[in-house]
Amino acid sequence: MAVVLPFEAPEPSIERLSSLVRSDLQKVNELILSRTGSDVTMIPEVANHLISSGGKRLRPMLTLATAVLAGYRGTGHINLAASVEFMHTATLLHDDVVDESELRRGKPSARMVWGNEASVLVGDFLLGQAFRMMVEVGNLRALEILSTAAAVIAEGEVMQLAAAKNLDTTEDAYLAVIRAKTAELFAAACEVGPVIAERPKAEQEACCSFGNNLGIAFQLVDDALDYGGSRAKIGKNVGDDFREGKITLPVILAFRRGSETDRAFWKKCIQGGDIADGDLERDRASQEASRVGRYRRARAPLRRDCERRARDFPVFKRQAGVARCRGFLRGQSALNALLSAA
Amino acid sequence: MAVVLPFEAPEPSIERLSSLVRSDLQKVNELILSRTGSDVTMIPEVANHLISSGGKRLRPMLTLATAVLAGYRGTGHINLAASVEFMHTATLLHDDVVDESELRRGKPSARMVWGNEASVLVGDFLLGQAFRMMVEVGNLRALEILSTAAAVIAEGEVMQLAAAKNLDTTEDAYLAVIRAKTAELFAAACEVGPVIAERPKAEQEACCSFGNNLGIAFQLVDDALDYGGSRAKIGKNVGDDFREGKITLPVILAFRRGSETDRAFWKKCIQGGDIADGDLERDRASQEASRVGRYRRARAPLRRDCERRARDFPVFKRQAGVARCRGFLRGQSALNALLSAA
Repeated sequence: MAVVLPFEAPEPSIERLSSLVRSDLQKVNELILSRTGSDVTMIPEVANHLISSGGKRLRPMLTLATAVLAGYRGTGHINLAASVEFMHTATLLHDDVVDESELRRGKPSARMVWGNEASVLVGDFLLGQAFRMMVEVGNLRALEILSTAAAVIAEGEVMQLAAAKNLDTTEDAYLAVIRAKTAELFAAACEVGPVIAERPKAEQEACCSFGNNLGIAFQLVDDALDYGGSRAKIGKNVGDDFREGKITLPVILAFRRGSETDRAFWKKCIQGGDIADGDLERDRASQEASRVGRYRRARAPLRRDCERRARDFPVFKRQAGVARCRGFLRGQSALNALLSAA
Repeated sequence: MAVVLPFEAPEPSIERLSSLVRSDLQKVNELILSRTGSDVTMIPEVANHLISSGGKRLRPMLTLATAVLAGYRGTGHINLAASVEFMHTATLLHDDVVDESELRRGKPSARMVWGNEASVLVGDFLLGQAFRMMVEVGNLRALEILSTAAAVIAEGEVMQLAAAKNLDTTEDAYLAVIRAKTAELFAAACEVGPVIAERPKAEQEACCSFGNNLGIAFQLVDDALDYGGSRAKIGKNVGDDFREGKITLPVILAFRRGSETDRAFWKKCIQGGDIADGDLERDRASQEASRVGRYRRARAPLRRDCERRARDFPVFKRQAGVARCRGFLRGQSALNALLSAA
């Protein structure tokens, strides 16, 4: 690949990646804005409510960065990066309907403002626009990667739906879900960079593997935060997953390790769903002896465990031989940045 | 184009089109079955519930027929036809969620059996699979046509949502909605046939125009049937559009032509939505003097008007010069078949 950077170990920060792709990302944002345009005014309203709500643009940044890394000289990476963001946004719009979420990135979710109908349909519109933009690039392999990702993401979401409230879910089954629903798009976003630059297969696979591992680590942290972040930080209600009976790693670990009483607690909460709205936000002292107290006490160590797992995740497992990827993307430090920013 | 058929005028029947593409359609059905497969068992369950529920496969038949018409010799039309059916099925799954429909093709809709969540997500999966299948064909122009259709269909659905309950909707605005939500996919299904056969632009446009006009006529009839079909025939509850306050041509005509009293009636029903469940099915005699009686009396002439409009629709308006299309697809007779089968 064309860019070689020295191997110093900077402080973990996403800033380095951001500044590297800043001018391209500006173009991506302009393209996004123009492609949410429609005479049907509800479409840009709903789409931009979410797209302009302060998302980190992490996935499109990965596409831009891997394209630069691969020495790509064209403009196709702008289209592909915008496509990736549209696919992600469509997923969020549909997820919020499926999960009945009230908040997204600290604002009322689109479905709370415009209704479930608009969220479903504008999601479909964005998915269609994503495909149009990637078709314009004219690279069939990139199209294959991204269209496969679209199907696999939905498959992961259905897997998650089917596993809901099922406390027999194994850690492997959980990993299969997050691999599909999250890591697949990270992997695709990273892989299409070297693909449009027509780099050798091994480099394409290395970038794909990097994205895949980063995506898994990202979701591990995201799931841990539901058991320990603050609403302000994570932009959604803490405990949403818990209330929905979503089986994430904290639940799996707590259930496996807990006493009989602990298990009974998790069973009642996750399967029976009997947590009242607002319970989780109540004063800690008054809750100490209650179920919610048990939940709160369990949260911190669970979160630490999940984050440790994420940190240990072998982001570079299969990257041997493509060491320059490492120097450039600073994988481990990008991950650390995610973890510390969270 | 390669196939020339004589110009006799057979009885209107869709049978002629079906028998022409029968063996290819068998392959499409096999491909559909294999591409709804997933380790996530809920996916084939939900997808096949709808796909195997006796849909006419009209859209994939159009793709197969136009490919044959264009003298296409490869296998890509099988993939494209299956993609078109998947796009259509995804739309139906999402539509049922948006419209809160209880019936689809005479069976409980997927959302009634598996819930809204599964309908949204399996629809997304099918859309992803549709794109994968069309990418495999490797024709960028076909990809452009079908991905554009995906975006335009969603745009049409949002338009319809935005116009709901608005009795100021004009006939032109209504036509714009059905052009986008229905005719666009008919047009795309017809256009990709000559496209993959690499036929001249004029022939591609003629097929596109044929599909567009056929799609508009199809939707005109479909909307008229909501005001006059029987549940057994149309496979959904009669009056669903009426109850949802959907602005279709029967409503627009009735509102425009009606007396002040009539307008007040339509306003109250469509905007206020105060039609009780079951009202429309009650005994006619007891309802004669009521609102529902007024609705029932209005139905038959409205339906006739709408169907007349559909019959008169210029399916061949811009086909001059590509007369062989006509001999082959028997456009007007296919349309008549649709009308008489409905």
